[in-house]
Amino acid sequence: MTHSIAVHGGAGLIRRHALSPAREQEARDALHEALQAGDRVLAAGGDAVEAVLRAVCVLEDAPVFNAGRGAVFAADGTIRMDAAVMSGADRSAGAVGAVQRLRHPIRAADLVRRTTPHVLLVGADAEERVVAAGAERCTDEELFVQERWDHFVRARAEGRVALDHDLDDAEPKGTVGAVARDAHGHVAAATSTGGLANKHPARVGDTPIVGAGTWAWDHTCAVSATGHGEAMMRCCAAARVSALMELAGLDLAAATARVVHEELPLLGGTGGLIAVDARTGRIALPFNSGGMYRGSLDTEGNLHIAIW
Amino acid sequence: MTHSIAVHGGAGLIRRHALSPAREQEARDALHEALQAGDRVLAAGGDAVEAVLRAVCVLEDAPVFNAGRGAVFAADGTIRMDAAVMSGADRSAGAVGAVQRLRHPIRAADLVRRTTPHVLLVGADAEERVVAAGAERCTDEELFVQERWDHFVRARAEGRVALDHDLDDAEPKGTVGAVARDAHGHVAAATSTGGLANKHPARVGDTPIVGAGTWAWDHTCAVSATGHGEAMMRCCAAARVSALMELAGLDLAAATARVVHEELPLLGGTGGLIAVDARTGRIALPFNSGGMYRGSLDTEGNLHIAIW
Repeated sequence: MTHSIAVHGGAGLIRRHALSPAREQEARDALHEALQAGDRVLAAGGDAVEAVLRAVCVLEDAPVFNAGRGAVFAADGTIRMDAAVMSGADRSAGAVGAVQRLRHPIRAADLVRRTTPHVLLVGADAEERVVAAGAERCTDEELFVQERWDHFVRARAEGRVALDHDLDDAEPKGTVGAVARDAHGHVAAATSTGGLANKHPARVGDTPIVGAGTWAWDHTCAVSATGHGEAMMRCCAAARVSALMELAGLDLAAATARVVHEELPLLGGTGGLIAVDARTGRIALPFNSGGMYRGSLDTEGNLHIAIW
Repeated sequence: MTHSIAVHGGAGLIRRHALSPAREQEARDALHEALQAGDRVLAAGGDAVEAVLRAVCVLEDAPVFNAGRGAVFAADGTIRMDAAVMSGADRSAGAVGAVQRLRHPIRAADLVRRTTPHVLLVGADAEERVVAAGAERCTDEELFVQERWDHFVRARAEGRVALDHDLDDAEPKGTVGAVARDAHGHVAAATSTGGLANKHPARVGDTPIVGAGTWAWDHTCAVSATGHGEAMMRCCAAARVSALMELAGLDLAAATARVVHEELPLLGGTGGLIAVDARTGRIALPFNSGGMYRGSLDTEGNLHIAIW
């Protein structure tokens, strides 16, 4: 059976002239490494959930993206992170919202999925719970990236809440995510983010919301979204792709294109998503913004990494 | 044009023999009062959003239900509330999660909708933000109901997380919600809850999640759910009703029945939902549990209030 994986590092304006060759290479390398980490699991006959968790851990570790290390700052100067993972096999899901000082928020989300009767835990109490279950604590310093702080200071000075790649500067800083289909026909999705730069510290976006930023169901597909989170939430973007496949008979490419190019714009939403077809393992990576850091890798070793 | 409104006060076991006549009357009176509060807005040509907000405020004030005054206690003995409101006209939505000491969480959710660029704010920082925008603060004592505390002490002693009406005792204690269609053809939904008794204090359920516990879209319907929140989240129950109408051509009754009686049970979910058809104003009130506190009122003054 065929297996495949796709990853993203956020969608946004991403102007070519503003991205240095060194930064671009750093982003491409991180996407490649994430794909390989997930692919190793899949090639060994492993589970789609573990594949997406490993891929997202690599992207959380990469300071070039806005998740884990390198996450952006909320309006109060803290780092507040959201993450979610969903298994298509049983639609079990786990998520954390507005959490601080966790090394790998996506692992924390998986601990919610596996060790609690709940789907979503938020705030400081959530941190305590997942750390008790084995999540790795870290310091604010370990997540800190100087460029991200400088970006926050600019956003705050300009009094605006900035989407990942909205600011015309040289830094990639996107939400990260992964979707995979394993050799057993199961799919999974995982998404992790620091949210919007200069956001209200209480804000929870689409990333940890099942059906909005993250969705997986073996009956249809797995989806991880990135972009204007509030628009994703208001149309349940990720579950919408699934519903269009199941109920309207669209294939993955048509369903994702309709959500990204027709429906999201009606809500003023820019962004993109990555999706994998549960039946065929086919990948779709549409976006309606200037660019989206993205990549995919399939059973045959076909590697695709792109930004614009 | 026809207008209509429906409300609920939670679904669950609700054994007849355990509910005293006095309590039953108290619940029925609160549902009736909520319907009238919303209907007054609708009859005057008012907006569906304001109608559901007023109805839910009445239910939040009623100590007999698990929202606002009378909310249940989390495992740490605090009251943590979730609420959401959505307008079908523009799919604007606002929600709060895990908030304390707010007199009317549903008004706080509406302030998120109207005064922030966000959809969901959580925790203590959310409280600060909505209070700054005009939400009414209250003390823990003002939300406190002795019977609810006794129930919590029992749930904690038995080491279990209790769904609204799972415990075989004499107290109604359900999530509350309202859906309405106004004379202009707009629909809205609002839901408010204290969540599960003895829940983890970080837990956020389906109530404040757009598409899970709360959904409104003038193209299809408005929905407010109650019951096992995690199951609602894992199938995006409220948006699912909408998708079944829009994409599969089901009418409101068939779409709600399919979600409640076929799809939720596959995820082990018990509960129910109230829904109003945006086109016809028709109401559906299905549940798969022992009972659901519910009521509806239409243009012609047809009043329906029931528990079993």
